[in-house]
Formats: sequence, C-alpha cells, structure tokens
Amino acid sequence: MRILITGGGGFIGQKLARALDKQGQLRGKAITEIVLADLHAPTLEGASLPVSGMALDIRDAAAVSAAFAEAYDVVFHLAAVVSGQAEADFDLGLQVNLFGTLNLFQAIRHAGNAPVVVYASSVAAHGGEEPEVIVDGVELNPQTSYGAQKVMGELLLNDMSRRGWMDGRGLRLPTVSIRPGKANAAASSFMSSIFRDTMQGEVSNCPSSKDYPIFHTAPRTVVANFIHAAEIDGAAFGPNRNINLPGRTDTVAEMIAAMTLVAGPEPAGRITWNADPVIQKIIAGWRGHLKADKALRLGFQQDQSFADSVRWFLEDDIVKDR
Amino acid sequence: MRILITGGGGFIGQKLARALDKQGQLRGKAITEIVLADLHAPTLEGASLPVSGMALDIRDAAAVSAAFAEAYDVVFHLAAVVSGQAEADFDLGLQVNLFGTLNLFQAIRHAGNAPVVVYASSVAAHGGEEPEVIVDGVELNPQTSYGAQKVMGELLLNDMSRRGWMDGRGLRLPTVSIRPGKANAAASSFMSSIFRDTMQGEVSNCPSSKDYPIFHTAPRTVVANFIHAAEIDGAAFGPNRNINLPGRTDTVAEMIAAMTLVAGPEPAGRITWNADPVIQKIIAGWRGHLKADKALRLGFQQDQSFADSVRWFLEDDIVKDR
Repeated sequence: MRILITGGGGFIGQKLARALDKQGQLRGKAITEIVLADLHAPTLEGASLPVSGMALDIRDAAAVSAAFAEAYDVVFHLAAVVSGQAEADFDLGLQVNLFGTLNLFQAIRHAGNAPVVVYASSVAAHGGEEPEVIVDGVELNPQTSYGAQKVMGELLLNDMSRRGWMDGRGLRLPTVSIRPGKANAAASSFMSSIFRDTMQGEVSNCPSSKDYPIFHTAPRTVVANFIHAAEIDGAAFGPNRNINLPGRTDTVAEMIAAMTLVAGPEPAGRITWNADPVIQKIIAGWRGHLKADKALRLGFQQDQSFADSVRWFLEDDIVKDR
Repeated sequence: MRILITGGGGFIGQKLARALDKQGQLRGKAITEIVLADLHAPTLEGASLPVSGMALDIRDAAAVSAAFAEAYDVVFHLAAVVSGQAEADFDLGLQVNLFGTLNLFQAIRHAGNAPVVVYASSVAAHGGEEPEVIVDGVELNPQTSYGAQKVMGELLLNDMSRRGWMDGRGLRLPTVSIRPGKANAAASSFMSSIFRDTMQGEVSNCPSSKDYPIFHTAPRTVVANFIHAAEIDGAAFGPNRNINLPGRTDTVAEMIAAMTLVAGPEPAGRITWNADPVIQKIIAGWRGHLKADKALRLGFQQDQSFADSVRWFLEDDIVKDR
C-alpha cells in the first residue's frame, strides 16, 4: 500500500500523514510508503513508516508524470491555490487548481492501476442561485474562481472514475477551523485566526459581522473523513463521486462563546472588528447552512460542537512548552 | 456590431449566420461584419452583409488570440467535438471542448471589451444521479466526457462573467432534430438521420428502442434562441449564466408518427431496427424529460410539435430541385 499526498506539506496533509502513519494500514493492507509531495519536499517528524518527501509543482505535467514511475494505491489530492489567492490571480488558480489537477489525474490514468483518489473540493462550490440551506443535489453555482476551479476538478474526477481510470471520491470540505499555523490568503483565514491567534495571546481582526454563519469542521474531523473516503467502496457513491461533507453551523459570536467556555474570557477580548469589504464580498457568496445527508448515509463524521474543536486545537496544535 | 461565430461552418453556425444576415442588426445596432471561424474557412452563400471566413483551430491559443486583434461585440461559441467523438477520444474532447473554450474565453478577456458571449452547452450536462424529470437547479451529473467538458466550459463562462470579463450566456441545447447534412459521430446522430435520410429515400438505422424518449428542439428554434440569448439583458440571468433551453419530449415512435403525418408512410418503412449497445449505453445516461422554467421566464422559445420540425426541415433543408 503506497500512498501519495499532494499538498503533503500543508497542515491537513501533515495531519493526514500522521494519522496514516499511526494506523499503519489502509483498505486492509499494510502501508509500505507514504510520499508527501509539495512545492518544497515535506518531512514528517517521528514517523514510524517510511515517509518520503517529494518536491513537485503539479503545474509541471512532465514532473507529475515522472512522479508516477511507480504506481500508488491511494492518492490524496490536497494541493491547491486557496480562495483569496485564486481570486486575486485568476491564471495562477487556473494553472494549479485546474491544470495541476488535470496533470495529476492524467498521470493516474496513464499509470493504469485505477487507484483510489480522494480529492479535496470545497463548499466554495456552492453559492449564488442556490437555496439558503444547501441540500444534496442542488446545482453548483460557485461565486469565486476557486470554487469554479474546484468544481471543474470534480467533473474530471467523476468522468475519469466513470471511465474506470481511477476510483475517485470528491469531498466538499466545510471551512476548516481551527486551522493551525499562520494566516493565509484564504478568504476564510479569519475563521481560524480569531481563535488560534487570540488563544496564543495575539490580537486578531474579524472582518465579518458577529452574526455571520460559518459552516465549519475541525481538522480532526477532516482527517477522519479523508481516511473514511479512502476506505469505503467507491460504488457506494453512485454515479456522482462528489459529495458535500458534513459540518456544523455556528455564527462567529457562537464560536467565540464556545472558545470562551473552553479557554476563558481573555482571547475574545483580543479580537478587533474592522470590517473588510473584499473579504465580506467573497464570503457573502458562500453558504452557511448545509445538510449533507448523502455523506452521513455513507458514514462520514459530523462535528458535534465548536467547543470540541477548541479543545482539539489546544491538544493537537499548541506547542506544549510555549 | 461585429459578430464572431465559432463552428461557423457547422449547420447551426450557418443557419445562425443566415438569420443574422437577414435581420441585419443585433442588440439594436447594425451588423457591420460577421466572421465565421471553423477548421476550414467557411463561406455563406448569398449574404447581404460582409461575411468573412476564418480558418481557426481553437486548440491553438496563439491563433485564437490573433483572431481578436479587432474586438467583437458578440461571440457565439458553437465549435466543439461532438459526444460520440469525445467519448471515443477523451484527449481530443478535452483539447477542443475545454482548452479550446478556455483559449477563446481568455482571448475575449484580454480583448478587454467584455462582449456578449453565447455558449452552446448541452443537455448532456444532465444524467446520472439527477431526477428523471430535470428541473432548474438540479446538480449537474454528466455521464459522458462531452457533457463533463461542456459543464467545465459553463463554469468558466460564469466565472468570467462574474469577473466582468465577458457578458456570458450559456444554453444547454436539447438534441437538435432534424439536423440537415450527413450523419456524424454524435451519439444522437440517429435522432435526425432516421427522419432526414428516410425522407430523402434512403435507409437509416435506429439503434434505440421505439419507446426511447427524446428531448428535442428544431434548428429554427435553436437559432431563434441563440439570437434571443444575445439580445436580452445579461443581468436577467442572475448569478447563474447557464440555463436549460426548452424543448419537447417525444418517443422515437411519436416522432416517426409525426413524420408520417407530414411526409406520408414511405419514410418510416425505410427505418431499420438494429440495436447498438454502445449508442444505447451513452443515451441511457441522458434525460428525456426537462422543464426549463427559467428559460421560459426569460422569453426563450419552446417547440410545439415535431410535425413543425418535419415541415421546417422540408422547407429549409431539402434541395428543392432534387
């Protein structure tokens, strides 16, 4: 069982690799190697299994093809240009999120072993003309270039799975909060930083209103759902391999209250409230309420409380001796 | 008013050019030039307006860019690899239907004048996990590479329209019947040939069952709807610029009965009934019933009877002195 993770240097790629390393097997087979691909070759500290890092720009079709000299049994495709960046630079988003995905999928096709492919799509697929509460089966109407590019990848995944070239499973991720690390160019970056940074004594700005509803999921849940997606039978997805993942909806104020419950009142006092029209315009096109019935039927996990997310962040991500 | 029609040598491109030439104006402005682009430079016999032909392979980004040295006010994008061909050759379909469309849209973007763009999508966008009767707002789940590629073009059109780089309108065309000319590699080719060829004294095979329901529209209706799409206000489409076009549903048997009503009993006798599993598999993924409420609200035309389509074919497409 050889596993490739693109975006393997990112925080979800790292957490996923750690979880796979810990469980030692996938789809009933012992994992023999985990390859982490990213722009800079990632490492995984303290791994038990053989983990190798690969420097790979997925825009480079020849390099991607060469990376498949030896076939993988499972590929997790997480590499992407995030929403804010894809909105600021349309061509970069297209090159990475569309062409990069196509390069990867073509390499998988030509490897000829029809591996399991788990693709990170996003609830940014939704918006615009869709109902206020998203349910399964509504027409995707993304209102960002990132969302549009993610959906184009979904279409490739589904078509190539239909052709038997891969056994694809596309997951539309809710906003992941609390994301560790530094703020990034994602329009949703504040949905983590107002918790992550303030709990670590820093000031953090919230560009949205307090009553903005966030459809979110915790990193632990995401990792569990990525692994679940790889484990289950592809045929269970039916003719549409792309699904909405479960999550939960809380307003910014409700999430802050959950943080206060777990971490005390100080962090909330460090949040500043300078509205940002650019961010507000992007996130206004998203949806805050989603019922992921198909995913729940397929056994995917749903977050039960943001207080859990706060606790998990403190357990998993805060450097203990800080 | 300069107009570009890609696929301008195809039968719809030719009929559209003829209609535009006849009406002389579009969007309230006199048409000064119609450019017909196709793999071989098309002509338009007996045109009143200046019509020029351009040999253009839309896979060639530099050539497409060069074709926009002078900007167009309205672009009709009809050029595509058809369904059967895109199913037989995935890469060709991708190169023309996805990359070709992207090349065109990027050239439009960089021309900088945000022209009206009317894009020919297809009801092949629908299938799979969708309900038996398609209504507006259902998640697209194409079951052919052609359908998947057309939807990817829709996503580009919508995103570039949202960005203000074009004023796009995507139309999902029902099966066009009766299509003049010769049989082609479209899986739907028989949906015209069993009428077109038998009315001209030839034998034609029907690969489907008699009770297969066809969601169809006549060439005259398609041309009227393309022009209507260019005329109306883009904002009327709302945040989703891609719509289902109206059409009507008849079984193969009902369409044959309509032909017999108009053209007598001989043509139906020339139909052979050899089932084709390849064609049947493709068309089984399509949908025969569709309610196009949004398009009707926007004033698009709906076919009233297949007998009309038979009459229009005889009037428009049969060489009179044959």
